[in-house]
This record gives sequence, structure tokens and C-alpha cells, in this order.
Amino acid sequence: MPSLEPYRRTLDYSYAPGIFPAMEALKNAPHSVRRLLISSKAEGSLGVQKLIVLCQDAHVRIEIADKALSRLSGKENCFAAAVFQKQATPLDLNASHIVLHNISDAGNLGTVLRTALGMGFQNIAIIKPAVDVFDPHVVRASMGALFSLKVLEYNTFAEYRAQFGAHSLYPFMLQGSVELEDALPAAKPPLALIFGNEGAGLPESFKTLGTAVRIAHNDKIDSLNLSVAASIGMYAFRKAVLDNG
Amino acid sequence: MPSLEPYRRTLDYSYAPGIFPAMEALKNAPHSVRRLLISSKAEGSLGVQKLIVLCQDAHVRIEIADKALSRLSGKENCFAAAVFQKQATPLDLNASHIVLHNISDAGNLGTVLRTALGMGFQNIAIIKPAVDVFDPHVVRASMGALFSLKVLEYNTFAEYRAQFGAHSLYPFMLQGSVELEDALPAAKPPLALIFGNEGAGLPESFKTLGTAVRIAHNDKIDSLNLSVAASIGMYAFRKAVLDNG
Repeated sequence: MPSLEPYRRTLDYSYAPGIFPAMEALKNAPHSVRRLLISSKAEGSLGVQKLIVLCQDAHVRIEIADKALSRLSGKENCFAAAVFQKQATPLDLNASHIVLHNISDAGNLGTVLRTALGMGFQNIAIIKPAVDVFDPHVVRASMGALFSLKVLEYNTFAEYRAQFGAHSLYPFMLQGSVELEDALPAAKPPLALIFGNEGAGLPESFKTLGTAVRIAHNDKIDSLNLSVAASIGMYAFRKAVLDNG
Repeated sequence: MPSLEPYRRTLDYSYAPGIFPAMEALKNAPHSVRRLLISSKAEGSLGVQKLIVLCQDAHVRIEIADKALSRLSGKENCFAAAVFQKQATPLDLNASHIVLHNISDAGNLGTVLRTALGMGFQNIAIIKPAVDVFDPHVVRASMGALFSLKVLEYNTFAEYRAQFGAHSLYPFMLQGSVELEDALPAAKPPLALIFGNEGAGLPESFKTLGTAVRIAHNDKIDSLNLSVAASIGMYAFRKAVLDNG
């Protein structure tokens, strides 16, 4: 492996910055981890010590890399980062999915990934154009949830739909015809909850795909934040997913 | 008013950066707005034109202030900002409240304020130490929701509780004894939903205050992001608040 480069989309590896995200990488996707970077100031850090033990068990190389770490973390302190091999993972045919359409913010995407994992949605489809799911900011915001999920990018929604024609579709839209709570009783897995871009939401055409869902709120705000809407939706639908076994 | 200074907590004014937040300030709290700052590059911006009309109606002074705007917005473009007088607003005795205990992240606080407004919680208590609710980053993340809310800071939770002894308390905790959905049927306003710090959550002592609520999620994640947990909680409780009339 050549020397480490600043992250960009075309690299075949990325970084999981922070002790917790690096730990999740080593625990849940150890074969994808190429190296562990640690800070020369990490002496005495219990978290870094745990990471070192995990690396020794998994035969992962460890190196001091202050420059790469400070480049990764900017103003914040960062004692460690895992360098990992990027991998596309096919989605399960029978599982329920989260479909994220043209998401543009790294923090939003990371938060959605973390909540999805906690609510039992382990399959995530990303419809491009979208923020790069392997971007270190996304990995960090997901708190390493990325390493427990199956995530695949699609060029268009049609491309996704062609693979998963049997999923019941639930696009979340401001003008959705069914209120969230009313959509739950009939929900049967496998299903796909679909969320749109932060500013624009989903295109109008999604309104006639499956059951367009709206989340009740008053008119004192224009809309809910994307990660808020997705979290409320995933929490509400979590039981329909559990039914899937 | 002397020349504009970089924002700090001790100033008696702050900034609402961005067209949408500035618009909310002018619409919902026009008497607090001292000036509108606009960019010399804003010519032709429909949003800025609307702001100018609102300012003329409210007799608010308008000035070109490129330097102050670029200081406010950093890398992002910012065509306008409202300069507003900071005001402490007493909370309603009979309304339900959101209580935020030692929140430290500006983006989180802003997102929670916006969601609170949308879910019908217009009274927010902030227990210090906490991020400054008037910080321009918070105002921006709230999309100007701040200007439609009553927000008051307290030095301790006891200080808040001394004023509002009749509110039913619902601290949200990982180890809460009642699951969110089970807490709803008995919920009667006025109530207070209490959320803790991003990393530490609420202190152990809150467990015996009122009904400690937990939000169901699996053990694949440690906890939910604060703004996610608060959003799920506020959405679930919104009907109990509406009952209040």
C-alpha cells in the first residue's frame, strides 16, 4: 500500500476517524481494515490501547501518523483512525430497505445510518447523485454504523426498483396522502422507506409509487430536517421490520 | 448602535444568518430586529428583495455589510443576516415544555428547536452549562424557529423545577423504566420532556423524577443521536400537547 492520501471518492480505501468508529470497523469488518493510524499523543488512552489489542488479534498493522490524523480531523482531536478497504455490499432480497434519494449532507447521512442500524434496517440503497457514503465525515457521523450495514449505490431509482420489484414502497413526502400512523397497520415486509434530498425532498413522481407518507407537524415550520424525518419514520416502522423475523 | 462585533455570549445582540432565518426574525419578532445586513452580491436575489420590503414596513435599517457577513458564514455564501436584540422570554405556566439539560452542540440544539416548533412545543428551558441558544450557528440550524419560541436559560434543573412544580416530568434515558409508547396513554399536560447531553445523557438522579422514558432500539448501537431521540420523543408526545388546547 502506497503512502496515505487525502480522501477522495476515487480511492479504493477510506478512513474511519475516531476511537469509536475505528473500534466498530475492527469489530464488525476486521477483514476490511488495512491499517490503524494512531497519534503520538495517544499514550495512556484506554481506547487506543483497546484498538491496539484488536489490531494484534486481527494482524492489522499499526502506525503513528500524526499528519494524516490531523488532516482527517481538522480542528478536533483525533487519536486514532482505521484505514479500510471500501466495499460495495449487495442488499438482501428479503430484508426491508432504507432508500436515500440524492442525500447531500455528510452529517445527515451518517446520522441516518446510525439510526437505521439501531432500528433494525441493515440494508441501505443510495440513489446518486449523493454524498459519498465512504467519506470519512459520513463514517464518523455514523459512529461506525457503516461497518454493520449493507450499503449499495444506484445511479437511478429505476435501477434499484428493477432489482427489488416486490418491496412495498413508502416514499416520505410533505404532500404524502397517508399519515405515518395510518400507514403502519397495513405495512408488511419487505418494505422500502424512501427519503429525499435535504432541500428538495423527493421528486413529485414518487407520489404515485406505493404509499406516500407524511409526518404530521404544524405549519409553523416548512418541513422537518431530513435526519429527523427519517428517524421518526424508521422508529415508527421498526415493528413492521421485526415481523420479518 | 456601535459597529458590529464578532458574536460572543456577552453581547446583547446576535445574528440570524441566511435569508430564511432573517425572514423568520422579521416576520415573527420584528421588534427585536435592529438592522438587516445584506451582501453587495445580493443584487437580483428574490429572497433579499423580500427581506428589504419587510424591513421597510418595519422601519428596520438596511446596510451592505460584506465583511460582517463573510465573518458570520465562513465558507458558505450568505446574502443576508438580521441583527437582533437578544431577549429572555418567560415560559408559559400552563404549556408543556421541552427541557434541554447541558446540550453542547449548536447544530443539535438548532435542529431540536425547529422540530419542537413543528410538533407544537413552544416553550424551551435550557439548563446550563449549555451551548448559547443565541449563537448564530444555533439560530441558523433552527432555520429561525428561535423567533417563534419562548426560550429561557436556568442555572440548574432545580431552579427550573421550582418554577414549574406541577409539570409531569418525562426524562428520556437509556435506562428509562417505561418504553416511549407505553408512556403515552397516561400523559396529561402540562408536561416536560427532558433530554440530556449528547455524550453523557441525563444524570442518574433523573431516573426517579417522574416517568423515565426509553426509546426502543436494538443493541447494535450504543444510543441514538440527541436530536434524533428528541425528535422521536416530541413526535410521539405531540398529541398529548395538543390536548392542552
